[in-house]
Amino acid sequence: MKRIAVYPGTFDPVTNGHLDLADRGRQHFDRLVIAILSNEGKKPLFTVDQRIRLLREAVAGWDNVEVDSFDGLLVDYARRVGASMILRGIRAVTDLEYEMQMAMMNRRMDPKLETVFVVPSETYSYVSSRIVREVASLGGSTAGLVPQHVEQALARHFKRSDGS
Amino acid sequence: MKRIAVYPGTFDPVTNGHLDLADRGRQHFDRLVIAILSNEGKKPLFTVDQRIRLLREAVAGWDNVEVDSFDGLLVDYARRVGASMILRGIRAVTDLEYEMQMAMMNRRMDPKLETVFVVPSETYSYVSSRIVREVASLGGSTAGLVPQHVEQALARHFKRSDGS
Amino acid sequence: MKRIAVYPGTFDPVTNGHLDLADRGRQHFDRLVIAILSNEGKKPLFTVDQRIRLLREAVAGWDNVEVDSFDGLLVDYARRVGASMILRGIRAVTDLEYEMQMAMMNRRMDPKLETVFVVPSETYSYVSSRIVREVASLGGSTAGLVPQHVEQALARHFKRSDGS
Amino acid sequence: MKRIAVYPGTFDPVTNGHLDLADRGRQHFDRLVIAILSNEGKKPLFTVDQRIRLLREAVAGWDNVEVDSFDGLLVDYARRVGASMILRGIRAVTDLEYEMQMAMMNRRMDPKLETVFVVPSETYSYVSSRIVREVASLGGSTAGLVPQHVEQALARHFKRSDGS
Amino acid sequence: MKRIAVYPGTFDPVTNGHLDLADRGRQHFDRLVIAILSNEGKKPLFTVDQRIRLLREAVAGWDNVEVDSFDGLLVDYARRVGASMILRGIRAVTDLEYEMQMAMMNRRMDPKLETVFVVPSETYSYVSSRIVREVASLGGSTAGLVPQHVEQALARHFKRSDGS
Amino acid sequence: MKRIAVYPGTFDPVTNGHLDLADRGRQHFDRLVIAILSNEGKKPLFTVDQRIRLLREAVAGWDNVEVDSFDGLLVDYARRVGASMILRGIRAVTDLEYEMQMAMMNRRMDPKLETVFVVPSETYSYVSSRIVREVASLGGSTAGLVPQHVEQALARHFKRSDGS
Repeated sequence: MKRIAVYPGTFDPVTNGHLDLADRGRQHFDRLVIAILSNEGKKPLFTVDQRIRLLREAVAGWDNVEVDSFDGLLVDYARRVGASMILRGIRAVTDLEYEMQMAMMNRRMDPKLETVFVVPSETYSYVSSRIVREVASLGGSTAGLVPQHVEQALARHFKRSDGS
Repeated sequence: MKRIAVYPGTFDPVTNGHLDLADRGRQHFDRLVIAILSNEGKKPLFTVDQRIRLLREAVAGWDNVEVDSFDGLLVDYARRVGASMILRGIRAVTDLEYEMQMAMMNRRMDPKLETVFVVPSETYSYVSSRIVREVASLGGSTAGLVPQHVEQALARHFKRSDGS
Repeated sequence: MKRIAVYPGTFDPVTNGHLDLADRGRQHFDRLVIAILSNEGKKPLFTVDQRIRLLREAVAGWDNVEVDSFDGLLVDYARRVGASMILRGIRAVTDLEYEMQMAMMNRRMDPKLETVFVVPSETYSYVSSRIVREVASLGGSTAGLVPQHVEQALARHFKRSDGS
Repeated sequence: MKRIAVYPGTFDPVTNGHLDLADRGRQHFDRLVIAILSNEGKKPLFTVDQRIRLLREAVAGWDNVEVDSFDGLLVDYARRVGASMILRGIRAVTDLEYEMQMAMMNRRMDPKLETVFVVPSETYSYVSSRIVREVASLGGSTAGLVPQHVEQALARHFKRSDGS
Repeated sequence: MKRIAVYPGTFDPVTNGHLDLADRGRQHFDRLVIAILSNEGKKPLFTVDQRIRLLREAVAGWDNVEVDSFDGLLVDYARRVGASMILRGIRAVTDLEYEMQMAMMNRRMDPKLETVFVVPSETYSYVSSRIVREVASLGGSTAGLVPQHVEQALARHFKRSDGS
Repeated sequence: MKRIAVYPGTFDPVTNGHLDLADRGRQHFDRLVIAILSNEGKKPLFTVDQRIRLLREAVAGWDNVEVDSFDGLLVDYARRVGASMILRGIRAVTDLEYEMQMAMMNRRMDPKLETVFVVPSETYSYVSSRIVREVASLGGSTAGLVPQHVEQALARHFKRSDGS
């Protein structure tokens, strides 16, 4: 039996914390599908297409990892790709409660689908997409927080939105 | 490649919450080893041998689950049984921080060993070995919280320790 | 002395978790007033009138419960209906701190008004209006999470807003 | 129908925070029974009899409050005194999870018994029996944290245990 | 060596809790700069200029405290004013995790800049700008929560926005 | 005016996390006194004298840091050494509440004494004396978690207590 996991998220943009988690996850599953939520109401920094491209470049060397996007229910998407597990990073206590509610809700909608939580490396314990966006928007360096091509994409994005 | 997970704990005694978690876990691994910590300083209610017997009876019907005990480092034990994952339930926010510290420490000692956290069923969200022991010690019913043979073992234990 | 409690909230929409709480609450008070906040800035799913109708249908069989809406300060509303207690459910640790701040603030504005927190049934521990809205908006089933007439209202709402 | 609440605890010793809570509670119930747990394993500072006397003196002026002790299950005790509610203070987020588990367990054992949580006054937000014992044991003043007669009892206790 | 600290925040509006913290902080530093973030996306109640004026009036008597505003990265601003410390109040557990992430991120950007957290007085443990705005917007009294001139500014603001 | 801070703790044993914090702290104070609590009831691994020696060796190169021990109230000790600040690390949300209570209690006993909390480096976010003791007691390596001479002291301690 193939063991397939979905790692869902917004990835706006992908950080080294996400990649650390995906790299760990792919050791333990036959296939890992990184799936970008595209039905978000909130205005993202990068479009879904941009986020897919940034992620694909980041995971280019990993042969059992693929990048996709989805809308609708996560449980439907997971079923479509044949996944039996959902992978989520858990960094902060305050995240946990919403994550636990989502895990219980998804299990109710599909009892065969299990959410597993993994702790990211302590090196990235303070790195989130939100903080990366804030730092980049104020002109701070994001080196070491995101892959180099994401760093460049952020620099381009905020230069452009400054009107230059 | 076989995927083997260790589910370590004190299991003093095993509850329906533990069994719910093990039952979920065994769907996602080739083999699940429930491993009772035997080097605990604190005086347990049941001996390691008793806890092994109670657990074995509880998982008798599940063919890819086995029950064992260990002392020493969890990472050494996991290596010995060929496990690549540690399974832990996560019920309460206050548990999480110590669990995260242990997961990071174990990963440091063996980077190939990953701890995955799973949320137990909401039905058992308030069931812990500690609360089961307290209720049983005060003569309360533990029906529905633990398997029937554990209920009987608790009743025997506390009748005896009452001097009767 | 009559003991009257107000159970304030947004109820957008009412869930089985809310109803479980109201049902418990009404055993302990002479009268329970479920009071919908109508001065919310955020755009709700259902109008206050719709929410009142959905709630009234849900509590139709309970004779010491009534449904109302209010704007302005909760302490003023509570005084108007003669309530001496505010009832709130408490499900998650992260909710607690804001709830505690509100309780202390309300007590400062009216020292005779006490906020009491009650834990909802574990069956509904993962059910919130927010998750219900998310699931329904993505076409998932909300059966068992909300009363049947709310399920239908959600289905109608999202069918309509899909343009059909 | 009389509304009777039990306020259970260790009260080793009673603090001004406990009394603030009891004073609020007694406004909302016909009778409030402060009930000292006597089946504690841990060695207390004051005996149950001493704690009863300290509490009785503290609540002497309140006519619908009484002080008692109990062992065994809280639900059995509550039934015996005809209580329909359990009153608990909630000061810290980290307390909450164990309190919620106990509330769910007690409700399972007696579905008619409801636990209600009340936030103590911010004035006493840092006052716990544990911190009072620590301060007193090191010779610090507990004035303002506990009633005067408890202050004196603490002083006597620690003078005596110093060998004088 | 002069020890300069920056106390950054939104201060929309300044509360007695902020002032309590600043008053403590100024005892321990040679100079304390209260710095209002002006690059906030969210629509504030008071403009940066109004907030500066309200704060300046509040700290008028304290000779080693000044009020300023900044945009861009906090670490750049801190460097500009020669600060070696960032002062933050910490009231609630749920605030802590974002605060800790920011502290680690700022330290990464400037290892010589340390964030120190101080607990505000329990008297103001429930006072936040957000709750002050809510109470004032609903016509409640903010006496005791903010300085008198802020109380008046809030009253003027909400009278005006009511159309009068 | 000299700025002196006390960094109190059990330090059983000192970890690289403690040293990281002390190293940061000493940049911001004229003098930093690391003060070992000696009135602990719980049986420590190392005696106070051993802990003083391990700490002194660890901070030997830092000229404004000294190591001491104390019993009695921290506020009395702080006054004796002329300290105006107490330095504490804050790593986990669950620690925070007890720390906040202690900070408020100490401030009540000496309003001029302020507790400041600093976040340790993410590198040591999972390192605590407790986990170091556990790992060492089970024969695991503590390299990188504690200074080399502490590593050796732990090895000696647990070899000896194994009876060899």
